[in-house]
Amino acid sequence: MAPTTETQEAYPMKGGDGLTSYSQNSTYQRGVIDAAKDVIVRAVEEKLDLTNPNINSCTSFRIADYGCSTGPNTFFGMQNVVHAVELKYHSIQQSPPEFQVFFNDHVDNDFNILFKSIPPSGQYFAAGVPGSFYQRVLPKASVHFAHCSYALHWLSKVPKEIQDKTSPAWNKGKIHYTGVEKHVTKAYFVQFQKDMDIFLKSRAEELVGGGLMVLLLPGLPKGETLFSKTGAGMLHALLGASLMDLAKKGAINEDKVDSFNLPQYHPSVEDLEMVIEMNNCFSIESFGTLDHPMRHLPFDVKRTSAQVRAIMEAIVTDHFGSEILDQLFEIYTKKLTENYLVFEKEIRKDCDMFLVLKRKSN
Amino acid sequence: MAPTTETQEAYPMKGGDGLTSYSQNSTYQRGVIDAAKDVIVRAVEEKLDLTNPNINSCTSFRIADYGCSTGPNTFFGMQNVVHAVELKYHSIQQSPPEFQVFFNDHVDNDFNILFKSIPPSGQYFAAGVPGSFYQRVLPKASVHFAHCSYALHWLSKVPKEIQDKTSPAWNKGKIHYTGVEKHVTKAYFVQFQKDMDIFLKSRAEELVGGGLMVLLLPGLPKGETLFSKTGAGMLHALLGASLMDLAKKGAINEDKVDSFNLPQYHPSVEDLEMVIEMNNCFSIESFGTLDHPMRHLPFDVKRTSAQVRAIMEAIVTDHFGSEILDQLFEIYTKKLTENYLVFEKEIRKDCDMFLVLKRKSN
Repeated sequence: MAPTTETQEAYPMKGGDGLTSYSQNSTYQRGVIDAAKDVIVRAVEEKLDLTNPNINSCTSFRIADYGCSTGPNTFFGMQNVVHAVELKYHSIQQSPPEFQVFFNDHVDNDFNILFKSIPPSGQYFAAGVPGSFYQRVLPKASVHFAHCSYALHWLSKVPKEIQDKTSPAWNKGKIHYTGVEKHVTKAYFVQFQKDMDIFLKSRAEELVGGGLMVLLLPGLPKGETLFSKTGAGMLHALLGASLMDLAKKGAINEDKVDSFNLPQYHPSVEDLEMVIEMNNCFSIESFGTLDHPMRHLPFDVKRTSAQVRAIMEAIVTDHFGSEILDQLFEIYTKKLTENYLVFEKEIRKDCDMFLVLKRKSN
Repeated sequence: MAPTTETQEAYPMKGGDGLTSYSQNSTYQRGVIDAAKDVIVRAVEEKLDLTNPNINSCTSFRIADYGCSTGPNTFFGMQNVVHAVELKYHSIQQSPPEFQVFFNDHVDNDFNILFKSIPPSGQYFAAGVPGSFYQRVLPKASVHFAHCSYALHWLSKVPKEIQDKTSPAWNKGKIHYTGVEKHVTKAYFVQFQKDMDIFLKSRAEELVGGGLMVLLLPGLPKGETLFSKTGAGMLHALLGASLMDLAKKGAINEDKVDSFNLPQYHPSVEDLEMVIEMNNCFSIESFGTLDHPMRHLPFDVKRTSAQVRAIMEAIVTDHFGSEILDQLFEIYTKKLTENYLVFEKEIRKDCDMFLVLKRKSN
């Protein structure tokens, strides 16, 4: 799955732009990885039941990372799961079983790169699983621990009404929801609900009873109702405004902007709780927010602009062609500079949520 | 794994050379696939024990194709296994479990192409497993049916002595064993023995007790002791002779030819029986030769030359560089023409062996 703005720095950047320094990137990465590691280790320590016959009767412990991309974060995540499970087995004086890790992502993910990057630690047997996680990709009751990091906020598609001129949800002049236009926000939420329910149903079949699932995704901060007030929301709104500037200049057609929308939803705690409870296959074992490392970094206009470009370049090019990219991100950088003070304050409130779910036993 | 000369037509040819017609290729492919299908269907029908708790207690039936390449033959093979197992379950009035297929090959195999080519039948869940099959690649007791087609005659490496000027096994002026030089042949056989034993030990750990393994590989025809008398042996000998011609012309260094050898061994029935019996993890349930489709096709010089080039181009380029390719295969085609009558007769005797092995229960 494509990474979100919030985590781009944890993914390989589009090479050779020189806008981001390694030290800044590594600080951020380290922060995300450490925060996620804590969640995984505690989930295994406190919630994984090794006396469960669905787990201890198997000759191997099987882990799946849904929406793994090409690394390296998937490797850190999987290593943390393996290590935590090994520790837990040792703590009860049992040898851990062999581990198998299933790396899942879209069929157009670069699995060749992924496979060549797998650390040669021999900690686990690796397998790649092609296919959208909004469907079944593994056999029934074949997974003991599922992991999905910064992928679930990507919807399976842009909701149809958003692009329908006759619909009250038509998202004219914008490229994402803000939270202000109720019909637009609702259309996005409904799509998220549908996608998330399919995700949970699919994983419910794939996980053994008592199996654990750790989800990490960007969400709406507690108490906030408007996406437009979040850092991510503002970044997307300014990209939309930059596209509209290009349209006003005649560089692109305004209709083209109206028909361009981002397939992302950043849920609130309540959104997630509701979907998980209605789905009814998983118990919520733990729910919280990661200490977002961005809170501890000064806002950097150039770095942020480069990040957003690295993430959005493919989707923008697909819709508008690549000719507009340089001009677009020039305008975008200017807008970020103009809004420096707002970002410097608001981006610290952004919220990365984690959930630890347990597959209910049938 | 790279395909052998005998099966190249069953793999995608290097595009755009126009030397091979679809109808000829498809006749050959059809023949190989049909012959292999029979082996698989009968192995499942006669040798797979569905009352075995290692098989019927699992929620999914797991199949692995070792050395799968990029298709399409791996897909036909896997489809045949799935279909045969489904039929067997239906015959005892049971619903078949879900199927999972593990496609294994070297990490430098093009898994992206493989994944994009998987037929969208929904018959099974697909996973790619990177790594040489001369080691463990899957967890203990996780496979019910293993398949390895035209890959096991590729050795893990050229035996060292072959390239050692001080060894009696030094293979001067040739690029493969012929069977005449005893030391050379023995060095190749010893490497085959080692590799095959590692293969069998690794698969023995990965297969459940009672699990089946179907092996297809080119071998030495019954009663024949010299590889040089087989079609494959002659094709390799002529390639060596063509390289020596280039050396005599001064286009390449003769030392370079001496240090070039093919990492292949085509075992006899006795070779295989010996290695499998010494390994002692598998019983031989069935052993025979496929009706080789080449027997029913006229020998075609241009097609054969193009095939051999398609297979050998990478390994030749790696050692000699690509500049010599055109000249080399010009000479090679000439040599094939000169030997037309011998090939027309001998290539029909070539032998593709199949084995059905069963993992002994501990």
